[in-house]
Amino acid sequence: MCRFLAYCGEPVFLETLVCTPCHSLIEQSMHATEAKTGTNGDGFGVGWYSERTEPGRYCEIRPAWSDENLQSICSHVRSRLFFAHVRAATGTAVSRANCHPFKAGRFLFMHNGQVGDWPRLRRKVEAMIPDELYSARTGTTDSEAIFLAALGQGLERDSVGAFQRVLHAIRDEMRALDITSPLRFTATWTDGDRIWAVRWASDDKPPSLYWRRGDNGLIVVSEPVDSQRDQWRPVPPGGGLVARVGAAPEMFRFH
Amino acid sequence: MCRFLAYCGEPVFLETLVCTPCHSLIEQSMHATEAKTGTNGDGFGVGWYSERTEPGRYCEIRPAWSDENLQSICSHVRSRLFFAHVRAATGTAVSRANCHPFKAGRFLFMHNGQVGDWPRLRRKVEAMIPDELYSARTGTTDSEAIFLAALGQGLERDSVGAFQRVLHAIRDEMRALDITSPLRFTATWTDGDRIWAVRWASDDKPPSLYWRRGDNGLIVVSEPVDSQRDQWRPVPPGGGLVARVGAAPEMFRFH
Amino acid sequence: MCRFLAYCGEPVFLETLVCTPCHSLIEQSMHATEAKTGTNGDGFGVGWYSERTEPGRYCEIRPAWSDENLQSICSHVRSRLFFAHVRAATGTAVSRANCHPFKAGRFLFMHNGQVGDWPRLRRKVEAMIPDELYSARTGTTDSEAIFLAALGQGLERDSVGAFQRVLHAIRDEMRALDITSPLRFTATWTDGDRIWAVRWASDDKPPSLYWRRGDNGLIVVSEPVDSQRDQWRPVPPGGGLVARVGAAPEMFRFH
Amino acid sequence: MCRFLAYCGEPVFLETLVCTPCHSLIEQSMHATEAKTGTNGDGFGVGWYSERTEPGRYCEIRPAWSDENLQSICSHVRSRLFFAHVRAATGTAVSRANCHPFKAGRFLFMHNGQVGDWPRLRRKVEAMIPDELYSARTGTTDSEAIFLAALGQGLERDSVGAFQRVLHAIRDEMRALDITSPLRFTATWTDGDRIWAVRWASDDKPPSLYWRRGDNGLIVVSEPVDSQRDQWRPVPPGGGLVARVGAAPEMFRFH
Repeated sequence: MCRFLAYCGEPVFLETLVCTPCHSLIEQSMHATEAKTGTNGDGFGVGWYSERTEPGRYCEIRPAWSDENLQSICSHVRSRLFFAHVRAATGTAVSRANCHPFKAGRFLFMHNGQVGDWPRLRRKVEAMIPDELYSARTGTTDSEAIFLAALGQGLERDSVGAFQRVLHAIRDEMRALDITSPLRFTATWTDGDRIWAVRWASDDKPPSLYWRRGDNGLIVVSEPVDSQRDQWRPVPPGGGLVARVGAAPEMFRFH
Repeated sequence: MCRFLAYCGEPVFLETLVCTPCHSLIEQSMHATEAKTGTNGDGFGVGWYSERTEPGRYCEIRPAWSDENLQSICSHVRSRLFFAHVRAATGTAVSRANCHPFKAGRFLFMHNGQVGDWPRLRRKVEAMIPDELYSARTGTTDSEAIFLAALGQGLERDSVGAFQRVLHAIRDEMRALDITSPLRFTATWTDGDRIWAVRWASDDKPPSLYWRRGDNGLIVVSEPVDSQRDQWRPVPPGGGLVARVGAAPEMFRFH
Repeated sequence: MCRFLAYCGEPVFLETLVCTPCHSLIEQSMHATEAKTGTNGDGFGVGWYSERTEPGRYCEIRPAWSDENLQSICSHVRSRLFFAHVRAATGTAVSRANCHPFKAGRFLFMHNGQVGDWPRLRRKVEAMIPDELYSARTGTTDSEAIFLAALGQGLERDSVGAFQRVLHAIRDEMRALDITSPLRFTATWTDGDRIWAVRWASDDKPPSLYWRRGDNGLIVVSEPVDSQRDQWRPVPPGGGLVARVGAAPEMFRFH
Repeated sequence: MCRFLAYCGEPVFLETLVCTPCHSLIEQSMHATEAKTGTNGDGFGVGWYSERTEPGRYCEIRPAWSDENLQSICSHVRSRLFFAHVRAATGTAVSRANCHPFKAGRFLFMHNGQVGDWPRLRRKVEAMIPDELYSARTGTTDSEAIFLAALGQGLERDSVGAFQRVLHAIRDEMRALDITSPLRFTATWTDGDRIWAVRWASDDKPPSLYWRRGDNGLIVVSEPVDSQRDQWRPVPPGGGLVARVGAAPEMFRFH
């Protein structure tokens, strides 16, 4: 399990959400309250869009709470759209290659959840990655494999459908192997223009997902970063939203 | 605050105490139960005596819970006397130079506690380090400075007295500066032959300290590593013990 | 390209060969003289056999020349059989998962060389890894993939034949894809009892390989670690040797 | 010895100078040509000014040549004034705290050179750091100590004079201790508005220093980053320059 945050709106310093709030993502790296694991100290990452098409990215294997570089970068980088993630590893190594957000071209992707019995399924899911993207597979997580597989399923044209097709294919494999542990997929991704976020699981326990309108834009999180609990709306299980700078978010079904 | 463990007795693999027990030091790195901070993820270290006079040492800035090297070293190094420490930083940086156990010649030292208002006192305590040891000052912690200062006070001949003299000198400085936050010193050190451990604070809250006879030797810990709570004896505030392979530990007063 | 060293014989401290000699492996991490790249600063690893069947391992992403832990471990670990490696990455990331020696059960493996056009071949070579070993694939190097594939080809019973079968299969794939860049394989592996070392390339430029009898045992290296050049015998291209503690090494052909 | 680069002018991406040129600073981290040591792999750092008064900073202990974060940050951060440094340690540990550029308030500082017999002088130079800055002393290098001492000598009002006073004081200490190894100080610093750079040594071997007008601004370097050798002007021994965005640099004597 992990904790993540996505923002789009007026350009703000990353620290506004990542470092400063009382229950900021950095605070959640040590004391998450709605996660299975309170400690999310197995690496972290931030990704942001500047004036280039592809996003910048900084990720590291240390806990977010003690990294001076993260503080400095968040204090000096201002962005209209950024992602941040703190990781709690579920069986795969702590390495930069396993840190979210994952990046491919102009896309970023973050995942909170897991593929049940991943060691048995890994090969099957990696087989869904198209050849031309296979050298972009640098780590061993289920998350990165799902992302690359979705790119192969047309993520650039129909990202919601692409992830759905991948998840359906994984469920088919799970059934074929009689794997009963769940597939959970609370995730968010962006093309640098829109942010999608979905909350889904094959059982009835998809990891939490919230959103709110902040002073300057829209925020999507695993759990609220401030104490204004009534401002945060949960995304229901099987739900999703898509947002864009300056427009109201649209809700959709995801299953 | 931190968690530590010291062992002397029949040579055993480090993993026997550091990794394997239900509440092992590695487990305590994520879930300490008697510490102010449950997470001790700001680096770690192990030191052990082999056939050489000076101990070996492995320390790293990552959390102990995810370090494959630590697991491997603990599974392959067998020692009659070893120290292990997981750190929760209290204001100084996460760096190897700030990881315990500290080493000087044949000595190792670990500390759990803190010097109140350290930024104001640092210079005073560093001034207690003798010239010939000053280049051994590689980090910025109060712990390392106290250790080096004690070496200057005759730690090699009278280690208990040396630490007492240093702590008294620090209290004098604290009084002179009107510093009211406490000086806490639960610590353990060794010359490779004997282990000393003390529990003391200028207020009534010295960090916890326990010891027990295990199957093969004596174990000193911040908090018990197994579930046999009745086998562990607390060291009282203002108390200390000194142990040696094959002999019963002796208790003493420390103030 | 990389530099490596393997030893079997009387138990000696690792430092005897890894740190102390004038052209030790640590020295070669900064100033290799027979390698394409003089700097081998992309991580390192040591593996050693103690009283357990499986070897211990310490690897890190920093350059070997500045790692205090490596010095300390090499000064305190004594072994009858150990491997050490300093890495110069050829296209894959600097990560622990990509550091040699690779370990599987009681085996260790180190490689100096490369598979031409690896990004195109990676998927093919990974397909040679048997299902039950696939979760042991933690990195992205050609070296680890070859090792795991060889395990699938019977490395435990016939290690020389197993590697030959894998290399032949890779060459077949290279031909099928019209890949003309070479396949180079100077490598060494061990089961904890015997050390094998081979020098081979599909072109006429296999990386160098030497061996000598030292004071206490047999040493196999990428390039000599001391200045007694006349004591070191090159392994010829297409050649290999197998050694065991206390016995004369045997030479064989490898192609 | 180390290699560094400073820029002021039109806002450009850091990569323009740090990553892209044929002999960029990243290239110099592995293959410096005018340094005593060709390898500058003991950590690195970049500092840049954005819209805030204080600069941002990213430094790491890995070699610059393999750090994906450095590449990404340099590709996405655009600045009108930035510093970059690759380190070759001369006796002190490889740690973030020892990486340049050092930062204090709105100032950045980088040094190439060394204080002869530093272990004996360290205490004397640290004594020059004023109390209120002492807690900013996080590492053990001569460079950081000189910088903090200069802050105590009025760096904010008269930075050239402040460094001169510190260097003179150090030379006095060296004479008093009969230290004959040289004091070398090729350095650059900035307040976020102007860049100063000086080249000086107590012997006749001050490390090299060059500057040129580039397409968009002024560049100061340890050694040229491109092949247009005739565009680069050496700063003479005992010389210095001060530059500001949009103005011609002024030369001065420094001794």
